[in-house]
Amino acid sequence: MTENYVDGLSLEEKASLTSGSDFWHSQSVAGIESILLTDGPHGVRKQPEGGDALGLGHSIPATCFPPAVGLGSSWNLDLIRQVGEALGDEAKAEQVSVLLGPGINIKRSPLCGRNFEYVSEDPFLSGRVAAALITGIQSRGVGTSLKHFAANNQEHDRMRVSADVDERTLREIYLAGFEYAVKTAAPTTVMCSYNKINGVYSSQNHWLLTEVLREQWGFDGLVVSDWGAVNDRVAALAAGLDLEMPPTGTDTQIVDAVRGGDLDESVLTTAAERLSTLVKRTAAARTEGHTYDVERHHELARTAAAESAVLLANDGELLPLTPGGQTVAVIGEFACSPRYQGAGSSQVVPTKLDNALDAILDLEGADRVTFAPGFTFDGTPDDDMVTEAVDAARRADVAVLFLGLPSATESEGFDRTDIELPADQIALLEAVHGANPNTVVVLANGGVVSIEPWKDHAAAILEGWLLGQAGGSAIADLLFGITNPSGRLTETIPLRLQDNPSYLHFPGSQQHVRYGEGLYVGYRYYDSALREVAYPFGFGLSYTTFDITDTSVEAGENSAEVTVTVRNSGDRSGSTVVQVYVHDASASIDRPAQELKSFAKVHLDPDESATVTITLDTRAFAYWSVAAQDWAIEPGDYEIRVGFSSRDIATTDTITLAGNVGVGTLDAMSTIGEWLAHPVGSAVLGAAMAAAAGDGAQAVSPEMMALAGSMPLGKLATFGLGITEEQVAQLVAAAAQPGS
Amino acid sequence: MTENYVDGLSLEEKASLTSGSDFWHSQSVAGIESILLTDGPHGVRKQPEGGDALGLGHSIPATCFPPAVGLGSSWNLDLIRQVGEALGDEAKAEQVSVLLGPGINIKRSPLCGRNFEYVSEDPFLSGRVAAALITGIQSRGVGTSLKHFAANNQEHDRMRVSADVDERTLREIYLAGFEYAVKTAAPTTVMCSYNKINGVYSSQNHWLLTEVLREQWGFDGLVVSDWGAVNDRVAALAAGLDLEMPPTGTDTQIVDAVRGGDLDESVLTTAAERLSTLVKRTAAARTEGHTYDVERHHELARTAAAESAVLLANDGELLPLTPGGQTVAVIGEFACSPRYQGAGSSQVVPTKLDNALDAILDLEGADRVTFAPGFTFDGTPDDDMVTEAVDAARRADVAVLFLGLPSATESEGFDRTDIELPADQIALLEAVHGANPNTVVVLANGGVVSIEPWKDHAAAILEGWLLGQAGGSAIADLLFGITNPSGRLTETIPLRLQDNPSYLHFPGSQQHVRYGEGLYVGYRYYDSALREVAYPFGFGLSYTTFDITDTSVEAGENSAEVTVTVRNSGDRSGSTVVQVYVHDASASIDRPAQELKSFAKVHLDPDESATVTITLDTRAFAYWSVAAQDWAIEPGDYEIRVGFSSRDIATTDTITLAGNVGVGTLDAMSTIGEWLAHPVGSAVLGAAMAAAAGDGAQAVSPEMMALAGSMPLGKLATFGLGITEEQVAQLVAAAAQPGS
Repeated sequence: MTENYVDGLSLEEKASLTSGSDFWHSQSVAGIESILLTDGPHGVRKQPEGGDALGLGHSIPATCFPPAVGLGSSWNLDLIRQVGEALGDEAKAEQVSVLLGPGINIKRSPLCGRNFEYVSEDPFLSGRVAAALITGIQSRGVGTSLKHFAANNQEHDRMRVSADVDERTLREIYLAGFEYAVKTAAPTTVMCSYNKINGVYSSQNHWLLTEVLREQWGFDGLVVSDWGAVNDRVAALAAGLDLEMPPTGTDTQIVDAVRGGDLDESVLTTAAERLSTLVKRTAAARTEGHTYDVERHHELARTAAAESAVLLANDGELLPLTPGGQTVAVIGEFACSPRYQGAGSSQVVPTKLDNALDAILDLEGADRVTFAPGFTFDGTPDDDMVTEAVDAARRADVAVLFLGLPSATESEGFDRTDIELPADQIALLEAVHGANPNTVVVLANGGVVSIEPWKDHAAAILEGWLLGQAGGSAIADLLFGITNPSGRLTETIPLRLQDNPSYLHFPGSQQHVRYGEGLYVGYRYYDSALREVAYPFGFGLSYTTFDITDTSVEAGENSAEVTVTVRNSGDRSGSTVVQVYVHDASASIDRPAQELKSFAKVHLDPDESATVTITLDTRAFAYWSVAAQDWAIEPGDYEIRVGFSSRDIATTDTITLAGNVGVGTLDAMSTIGEWLAHPVGSAVLGAAMAAAAGDGAQAVSPEMMALAGSMPLGKLATFGLGITEEQVAQLVAAAAQPGS
Repeated sequence: MTENYVDGLSLEEKASLTSGSDFWHSQSVAGIESILLTDGPHGVRKQPEGGDALGLGHSIPATCFPPAVGLGSSWNLDLIRQVGEALGDEAKAEQVSVLLGPGINIKRSPLCGRNFEYVSEDPFLSGRVAAALITGIQSRGVGTSLKHFAANNQEHDRMRVSADVDERTLREIYLAGFEYAVKTAAPTTVMCSYNKINGVYSSQNHWLLTEVLREQWGFDGLVVSDWGAVNDRVAALAAGLDLEMPPTGTDTQIVDAVRGGDLDESVLTTAAERLSTLVKRTAAARTEGHTYDVERHHELARTAAAESAVLLANDGELLPLTPGGQTVAVIGEFACSPRYQGAGSSQVVPTKLDNALDAILDLEGADRVTFAPGFTFDGTPDDDMVTEAVDAARRADVAVLFLGLPSATESEGFDRTDIELPADQIALLEAVHGANPNTVVVLANGGVVSIEPWKDHAAAILEGWLLGQAGGSAIADLLFGITNPSGRLTETIPLRLQDNPSYLHFPGSQQHVRYGEGLYVGYRYYDSALREVAYPFGFGLSYTTFDITDTSVEAGENSAEVTVTVRNSGDRSGSTVVQVYVHDASASIDRPAQELKSFAKVHLDPDESATVTITLDTRAFAYWSVAAQDWAIEPGDYEIRVGFSSRDIATTDTITLAGNVGVGTLDAMSTIGEWLAHPVGSAVLGAAMAAAAGDGAQAVSPEMMALAGSMPLGKLATFGLGITEEQVAQLVAAAAQPGS
């Protein structure tokens, strides 16, 4: 745990360790250094000295890697760890001790304005991505801050809203990614969120910050507030919030509370020790003389961007284009003014910035490329620009349209109210496609956009998300087949916003948002309700094809080992993502139809096969039992579904697990169905029924069971149905006999 | 309130008044008569003396009126009151003091096994129907029991399950119908449900039975347990449960609790007084010599049945048939073995029983009608029966198929797991329709069945629900145009079960069911999520047509008077239901897209017009404010939508209401958006901003407001954004000035 550096400090000194010295630094006390924390997560946003408090857009240049919406779509944990290492190197070069990321809030609604900073609608994937990033960054001695803990799934009223979520949903969906990252990657800090959970501010939530995070998950780092998230300094410290940022000049409240007996000094001491430990743990970040290779990092950003884009459609194998092989009309302002990151605290000043138009010119040759901007970012239709674009498209072999969401439409700080592309862009697309059916759409958007309304006007669709500073060249690499697309959707693209399960429960009102859909977030809903989607979770095309040729599953008591052989059945090298979903086939409890429980990204040359072994541990089969306050596995059958998306399952194997829940005890309120399903109870009750009925005893008919099965046994006595309360009591006693 | 008859009684005597003497009677104590309570709600189910406890199917004959699923579909409150009067007369003839009905639990899911006993997915309609029935029954001096109070929306685990529902949803959806009926029709008793609400058994729920029901709604009658619903006798009495049925021999627990100081004697005295008051209030039911006219009641049941059926489709005006005008193949066992009521405690032994085949033979003439049973109720396909039916259909001008749910598929005691017609019946339909496109389907089902899968195989569809003992002749009357269909759907028929908003939250597990969909029940969901449905709420065809030719709306401060002129634009007499929906056009809170707030059934001859005046009181615009613990109306615009179903709106008028919620007080946690929207706050903040910015002050841009609008004002100080905490405090003080 933490080490003891602060014993000799005064109350005031200890208190001062629990808030910052300025917007970005902790306080220096008695030899404990002040450390610098800066925004992340996909680049180092260090403001120059003397910058204002927020100063968005005025930071020291740093590599802008793909934001989480992009990077997560790579499903490549090795690559993500490498990006983490590079982030760590850049932070170290700038003497940044803690990089404030990664962020892994669940994409509950596509409307959340900050979705571009988050990974997925799925907690398993979110947790793995976070762990890889943390491992990479911290390998350089730089600290991280896993955020925003927790249930900060919207921007609307984020500083006050109460996320009203039932505990099982919290545990299985909104906390599970944090849990995995904390347990396996040990982030040096966790950042609490602004919002309330079930009425209690995260910053003051003892259950969250102390019981769950520390006592249950074993977190031994520091909890820092999101900037401005503390509302009651003393309550926050008591709940487990160690460091308030930025400072509000309230250290004396802590001192007074201890002196007044309202706060145990040990709580303050522990928090101060944690700060001291953090300073120690991040010492390497403050060693001098580190630099990084800007070009090498840019190349890594380009590799990452190329793995992050998702090829959604490619009718007639229009893509890839052949370098120098056709005339191309490049249309859309985004081609030369790329949208590559989101607005808000994560906004990095890039070291350089590629654009797709330049890269396409390089690959195709300037004489075969025309460019037309097509539209403006303010959404005002412009007939002349459309005419110019249509003319360019008509004259070219292929039209590549760069469409997307202008930066004003999505940002930290507010949520979107729809998921549509601007109408002027869709009108442009329709006009261009009318002139040239060989139309490719490249998208730039941080949050999901609806594709259904216009997909018939595009022969190929490359979802480019936000891809960081090298996104432009990466897109060109993908269009021309220099790299083969291998990104996969981390969130379902629905047919329409109204299909999203949170639709009528987002963003709430009166300072409350009800998570009414419960566990059924993202594909957990779409797949359980058998709702048609535009593109399912896990989906993504390649320029080659892959087959799963063999799957075998070996079951343990409550685990399984899955061996999958996957083959590149096409004629190009490429990567695919083998996804393993688990379906609880004999659940007695509510469960999503299936859940992602493992995945592996595999690179294969043509005709090459690889065998992947995937271990599903007990957690892969568990649900959170509120009654037991623990993860529980029901005994019974589980389907192991292996495929390439949640809707493209290649093989299904069924295994039987022992489970880890006892058979339970029976009482008078146990239903007749429960008695008959219980190993001891069924014998006891069956014997009693046989005795009562004599030789003519008949088996219980299905109709009778349907009627009576859900009636508590004791109610038979209430209704005078052939049994007395005394007899019920005798049965309960008999069923409880250890020997029976 | 209650009158004092019990002062002189001993503790034991008072306690004995709070439980029954046997399964169906209260105890007789010190001159307070024992009274008989029997099952309802659509007929008197009085068991002969000496019958067993439940004795389903062995009661004294009584008129079986249409169960609530049918009767409610009439939307005819006058008719429903008349049925109530007849029920009261029959009860009186049998010395029944309390008829245990009506039941108005909301049809949250089409799967609920007892939906046939309930009215609607809508609380407004449910409350009106209940009030009409109660008024009718009680006009005869017979008591009623409004049930099952509350949130008993499923049969699965009904004796234990906790309905986990947020308060606003409870108030607006699950309690609202009860509230209306209690306040306007004063049922003599209310029956508590088996289940728990948010963890507390209804039978022990002080909030429900005392605070809401009595203190807030003014109920002054008696609360009786559903049969067997009491789990803790003393806790139940303390919560407000006055009478336990059937008795469990636990009266001594009450006496002991009073003696031991665990129960205030006044609670017991009050309960005993309520029983005594109930006995007095129902004295007329026990006067001798009453009889009823069996034939007249049968005719009323026939009238009610004819108004209850809903004509869903009538392609090419295939219906009505002409008496004696064509050859008819009557197909389906239901034509001669009608399914006319549901199974369970409400099952009546009818005084007589019509069947459709006999009635069709009468109207068409025996020589023009053939009959083929087509299928059996056990669902086993039978090729010979299909062949016989197809042959009959081929030879006839019209085929009328009687399809539906066999009685084993739905009942009190268990829920369905799908909403499909039996596969053998659908196969039969397809075969028959293949032989004769003039195919009419008549349905018999207590819960909604899916129609989408087979609707292309039926030219006309008459949804007959369960229509009581005269349903067979009523159906024939409708098929031949003797009466004109005028029933309207009280629940949406979805395209498929998975579209129902409760689908993934029904029936729950681990003894909990989360009402995750919240307010969005039935059409409140379908209309808010713009989800396509098979047939919308309020829908029903007629053999004539109706137009709304004029609507005018006069707004009060927080109410409106709607004047609608409706015209029969076809060539037959008939009835239609004018429906008024309210849409909150400027809601700042979550609200369903529209809600039924009034309706009127109107009978018109061809070319006749009628002007209907409908008053929308304040409640028509109100939502339940959890914070204020009261009904609240936001100021702003409301649309008054008048039409013939939730998806067939003829006119929309917008009114502006003053609202009844204050502007609220501002504090440091009020957002900048709230400050700027506040009449005083906007002036105060605006002045401060102008002063700070000097002459160059600019208006706040929409982009800036989107970013900053949801930030609490006080957080500007936290971030050092041009304002200090002292200045924030000054602004808060200024905004609170009464004069400012």
